[in-house]
Amino acid sequence: MERCERIVPHVSARDLVELWRRKQLEYTWLRSVMGRYVDFWAVTTEALEHAAGRLGARLDAPAQSRLMEGWLLLEPYPEVRMALDRLDRLVPSIPLAVLSNGSPQMLEQVLEHTRLRSRFRHVLSVDEVRIYKPSPRVYALAERHLGLARSSILFVSANGWDVAGAGAFGFSVAWVNRSGVPAEALPGAPALVVDDLEALADALEQQRSPPG
Amino acid sequence: MERCERIVPHVSARDLVELWRRKQLEYTWLRSVMGRYVDFWAVTTEALEHAAGRLGARLDAPAQSRLMEGWLLLEPYPEVRMALDRLDRLVPSIPLAVLSNGSPQMLEQVLEHTRLRSRFRHVLSVDEVRIYKPSPRVYALAERHLGLARSSILFVSANGWDVAGAGAFGFSVAWVNRSGVPAEALPGAPALVVDDLEALADALEQQRSPPG
Repeated sequence: MERCERIVPHVSARDLVELWRRKQLEYTWLRSVMGRYVDFWAVTTEALEHAAGRLGARLDAPAQSRLMEGWLLLEPYPEVRMALDRLDRLVPSIPLAVLSNGSPQMLEQVLEHTRLRSRFRHVLSVDEVRIYKPSPRVYALAERHLGLARSSILFVSANGWDVAGAGAFGFSVAWVNRSGVPAEALPGAPALVVDDLEALADALEQQRSPPG
Repeated sequence: MERCERIVPHVSARDLVELWRRKQLEYTWLRSVMGRYVDFWAVTTEALEHAAGRLGARLDAPAQSRLMEGWLLLEPYPEVRMALDRLDRLVPSIPLAVLSNGSPQMLEQVLEHTRLRSRFRHVLSVDEVRIYKPSPRVYALAERHLGLARSSILFVSANGWDVAGAGAFGFSVAWVNRSGVPAEALPGAPALVVDDLEALADALEQQRSPPG
């Protein structure tokens, strides 16, 4: 948002970020239905081009690059680092993993930038199966790489539609619903809805501690 | 829109219609990627429930029914009836057909309501293949039922994403871009972009008349 304000001051940063993100997701779904996969960096670039054109924002190549770079420099929410440590200690035999629409290169760069790479045993990208969430082929990647049955995996997402897809696949799902929006009217209900990752760690620690 | 204003006067009809339509499309795409088809009536009902909940519109069952009924009572744009007649005369050996996300029952009812049923030789619904546009399996229905190669079929749509899907499939595509939005940044370009169906008939008649 801040980057948009700086680089494209003549359009509303809120409008641009909102339309860009919406088109980014729409294009992943549409390309998945069409059977026309390109990786998330390409989809995100195309979504920016459309969103900028629609809002009358003229972007030259350097401006476009600087906006795209924002995806590699995302900051984690403040509670994330500590909450990941707590989640990691919870069941030592079950590792933490990333399962993301992001391309392998985007994931490596953002995990390096945030210094969170070492927290995760697996960093899995949809790029391996060349289709996006919520395809069951994506969620099956976690089963395969972790060597665990889907019902033993707790899948955590901030996106209602991803929660639905993962729940319909058969994961146990926690929805980090930071803005308190209603659930999507899709199959696949979450087992747990929390405000942030700290609340998730609280809830899981409580479940595991024997009743007093 | 008018129906929303009457039935749910306490929320913005524009916001409700916009979010309802957006969720309706998103759910068709998401369910297609998930492999969880339900028909367009069910998807449209679920989209309304989510949109109403998100905007704080309390809908009882009769209000919901009356809003849903709107999909069966849609009116064609003013030029449609006349333009269809002109298009039908253009190449007598090539029939007009509907290829729609709508369920067979929705299509029959809206075509009866608009008295346009007799204009179309084929009324094809995605329901036959249980996946939504822009799946190539949907566009293949037209080839199969019309007995024509995809490149001999002129596919006409008002939706940029449907234009992309149909173009990527291999149809010749005309985009009726009534509101003048920029093209989606997806594969599959239209052969023709027009403002309405009258302009489409004009363009095609001009193409077919020998140079003077």
